[in-house]
Amino acid sequence: MDAIEVIRAKRDRRELTTAQIDWVIDAYTRGEVADEQMSALAMAILLNGMDRREIADWTLAMIRSGERMDWSALDRPTADKHSTGGVGDKITLPLAPLVAACGAYVPQLSGRGLGHTGGTLDKLESIPGWRASLSNAEMLDVLRAAGAVVCAAGSGLAPADKKLYALRDVTGTVESIPLIASSIMSKKIAEGTGSLVLDVKVGSGAFMKTVHDARELAETMVALGTDAGVRTVALLTAMDRPLGRAVGNALEVAESVEVLSGGGPADVVELTVRLAREMLEAAGITGAKDPAKALEDGSAMDVWRRMISAQGGDPDALLPQAAETMTVEVPASGVLTRLDAYAVGLAAWRLGAGRARKEDPVSFGAGVVLHAKPGDLVRQGQPLMTLHADETGRFERALAALEGAYEVGEVAGPQLPLVIDRITV
Amino acid sequence: MDAIEVIRAKRDRRELTTAQIDWVIDAYTRGEVADEQMSALAMAILLNGMDRREIADWTLAMIRSGERMDWSALDRPTADKHSTGGVGDKITLPLAPLVAACGAYVPQLSGRGLGHTGGTLDKLESIPGWRASLSNAEMLDVLRAAGAVVCAAGSGLAPADKKLYALRDVTGTVESIPLIASSIMSKKIAEGTGSLVLDVKVGSGAFMKTVHDARELAETMVALGTDAGVRTVALLTAMDRPLGRAVGNALEVAESVEVLSGGGPADVVELTVRLAREMLEAAGITGAKDPAKALEDGSAMDVWRRMISAQGGDPDALLPQAAETMTVEVPASGVLTRLDAYAVGLAAWRLGAGRARKEDPVSFGAGVVLHAKPGDLVRQGQPLMTLHADETGRFERALAALEGAYEVGEVAGPQLPLVIDRITV
Repeated sequence: MDAIEVIRAKRDRRELTTAQIDWVIDAYTRGEVADEQMSALAMAILLNGMDRREIADWTLAMIRSGERMDWSALDRPTADKHSTGGVGDKITLPLAPLVAACGAYVPQLSGRGLGHTGGTLDKLESIPGWRASLSNAEMLDVLRAAGAVVCAAGSGLAPADKKLYALRDVTGTVESIPLIASSIMSKKIAEGTGSLVLDVKVGSGAFMKTVHDARELAETMVALGTDAGVRTVALLTAMDRPLGRAVGNALEVAESVEVLSGGGPADVVELTVRLAREMLEAAGITGAKDPAKALEDGSAMDVWRRMISAQGGDPDALLPQAAETMTVEVPASGVLTRLDAYAVGLAAWRLGAGRARKEDPVSFGAGVVLHAKPGDLVRQGQPLMTLHADETGRFERALAALEGAYEVGEVAGPQLPLVIDRITV
Repeated sequence: MDAIEVIRAKRDRRELTTAQIDWVIDAYTRGEVADEQMSALAMAILLNGMDRREIADWTLAMIRSGERMDWSALDRPTADKHSTGGVGDKITLPLAPLVAACGAYVPQLSGRGLGHTGGTLDKLESIPGWRASLSNAEMLDVLRAAGAVVCAAGSGLAPADKKLYALRDVTGTVESIPLIASSIMSKKIAEGTGSLVLDVKVGSGAFMKTVHDARELAETMVALGTDAGVRTVALLTAMDRPLGRAVGNALEVAESVEVLSGGGPADVVELTVRLAREMLEAAGITGAKDPAKALEDGSAMDVWRRMISAQGGDPDALLPQAAETMTVEVPASGVLTRLDAYAVGLAAWRLGAGRARKEDPVSFGAGVVLHAKPGDLVRQGQPLMTLHADETGRFERALAALEGAYEVGEVAGPQLPLVIDRITV
C-alpha cells in the first residue's frame, strides 16, 4: 500500500477501504507516511468527507494505535462526559464528583485550553498541589478512593490522534466533522468508559456555530460510540452566551465550588444536574440518589474534596487571584439583550486565562466575572463585568475584544434554550 | 500574514489575493511555510481550483523566487517548445536544431523522465560525452556556436517550483491544471524565451487523458504566456499510440538522427515540421527556409552536430545498445487496430528506459522498437515489436505491461488525428 494511492482515492471522492485506513493510520504513527502526505489527506477528507463506515474505521484505527484502558476490575458502572468546549464551561468540575456521589465511577481524561475556550486541566491546576498527570495505577487508586478522577491522557492513549491533531492545527484542517468526531471518540473509547454523554455546544463561543453542524457532529459521535459498544447520548446546548458568571481558571473553580455547596448560577446548576441524570441513565444506574439532592446534601462536595486531595490538591487552599481588576459598566438602562460568548472568551484569553501556543503558561487568576446575563434588567452605570489580570497592560486588548459584544434594549432578545436537543441512536 | 489563513481561504472556496499568493510562495521558498502546510494548500487548490488571475499571480510569484534569464544580447529572436510528455516523444531532438537552422535561437531547458514518459536529457545523455548541466555563460556560448542548446535548468530558476513539484509528487497533488500550468510556465517564462509553442499531448500515454482536459490546460498556459509577454501558441496532439517507432533513450536518439537525415517515421517528421513552422511564426521570423527543406538539405543535421559537440558529445560515437532483445510477434493477420501508448511506455520503463525514483539511473539501450503502427496491415507471426533490455529478467514484466495493449482486426479503428487542435489567445 502507498500513501499517494490513499490520498488519490479520497481526493477523487472514492471511499477509503478499511485496509487503506488501517494502513495509513498505522504508517503515519510509525512515521512511514510523512506529515505532508497526511495533511494532504486531511484536506481531502475535509473537502470530500467520509461516510459512517469510514469514520468508524478511522476511529478504530486511531484507538488501535495505542492502549485501551480497562475498568472491568471496578464493581460499579463507569460514566463519562465530554464537552466540545465553550466559554465558562466548567461543568466537569461539579459534574464528575456529583455523578460519583450518585453511584457511578467517573474516569475522565481531560485536556488543556487553546485559543478562546478554557481547558479543564488548566482550571483544576489553579488548586495548589493538584496534579493532572497520573499513571493508570494512580487513576485506579483515585477512582477507588473518591469515585471520580479527572486527569490528563497518557501518551500511550491514541497516539495517532495526538500526532494528527497537532498537524491539523497548523494546516487548516481542524474544521472537519469526520476528523473532529473521530478525534474525540478515539480518546473516549480508548479511555474505556462504559457510557458517555456528549455535550455538543452551539453558538458563537463554540466550535459549531449552527445547530445544523452541531447535530451532524453529535449524530456522528453517538453512532461511533454506539458501534464501539459504549452507551452514548448527546445533548446540544447553548453557547451563544457564556455559561455561568465566571470565565477563567481559578474563577471557574470558585464558581464550581459554589455549585457543589448548593448555590451557583442557575444555568450551571441546571446543566450539571441534567448531564448527571443523563450519565446515570446511560450507565444503567437506577434508583440512585437524585443529582439535585446530592448537590444540596453535600455528598457531591464530599466526593470533590476526596478527589482533589487524592490528586495532591488542597481543597481548602486559597485560590490564586489576579493582581489587577477593572470594571466594565452597563452603558444604558434596560434589558441586557445580548452578551456574546466568543467575545467574552476572547477577552478572558487576552487577559491571560488562555494560551496562544501549547507551550505557553496560563494565568490562574485572570478572567472575566459577569454581573449580568442576557435577559437581566440592568441600570446604566452598574457593573456589567469585572476583568481580572496580572498586569493592567492587558485590559486594553480585552476591552477591544468586548467592543460590540453586548447590547441593552427594551425587551429581552431571542436566545438559544440551554438544552436545544437530545441525540440518541 | 499566516499560512493557516491562506489555506483556510482556499479551503473555503475564496479567491487568494495577490498579496496572499506572493507571501505564501516566498515564505515557502524560505522554509517559513512548512511542507505540510503547502501540501494542504495544494490539495485545496486541486479540489477548489484557482481562477485566471490567481494562476497568473501564482506563476509570477514562482518566477520571482529565482532568476529570470535574458537573451537580449542575441541578434535573432528566441523560440522554444514544451511538450507535456508522451511515449516516444523525442521531438525536441530534431526540432531544436531544425528551428535554429531556419533562423531562430532555441534556448531549451529540459527535464528528466519519471514514470512511463521519457525525459529529453536522459535521451541526450546516451550520446557519449554529452553534458546536460551548463552555466548560463556556457548556454550562451552554445547558442552562439550552434543556434540551439538543450540543457538542464539551473537551481536558480524558479526554485519555488522545484520545491513544490517534489512535494506534489509525493502528496497526490500533481493532477491540478492550475498547478501544472503554473509549474510549466514559470520555468518557461523564467527561461527568457521570446516565444513558446506548447505541445499538449492527449491520450492514454499522456498526462491529459481527454481532449477536454488538454484544452483547458492549453488555454490556461497560452493565457499565462501571453500575459507575461511571451508569444505563446499550443497544439493538442495525439498520444493514444506512441509517437514514431522507437521508445527508449538511445533508440530515440537514433530515430531522431534518421529524421535529421531526411528519413524517419512519417508521424515524427510531420509533427517536427509542424512544430517548427509554429515556432518560427511565433518568433516572428518570416521568409525563412522551410523546415521540411532544412531536414532534406542537411542544414538541420549540421546544427545538431554542432550542438552536440558544443556540449561535449560526439555525434559520430556509437550509441549504447542493450545486451538482450526479444521479439513480440503479431498474433493474427489483419489490420493493427490499436497499440496503446501507455502500455508501451510502461513496458519501456520496466525494460529499464525509465526510473522509479529521481535518484535511479536509466539504461540507455533499453526500450521498445515498434515494427508496425495502428492502421498498418500485419501478418500473423511477423515481428510486432522488439524489446531491448540489459538483462533477460526484465522481459517478463514488460510483456505483462503489454497484455491487451494491441489488437488486430479487419478494418482500421478510429484514432486521434496527429494534430487535434491549435489554441491561441
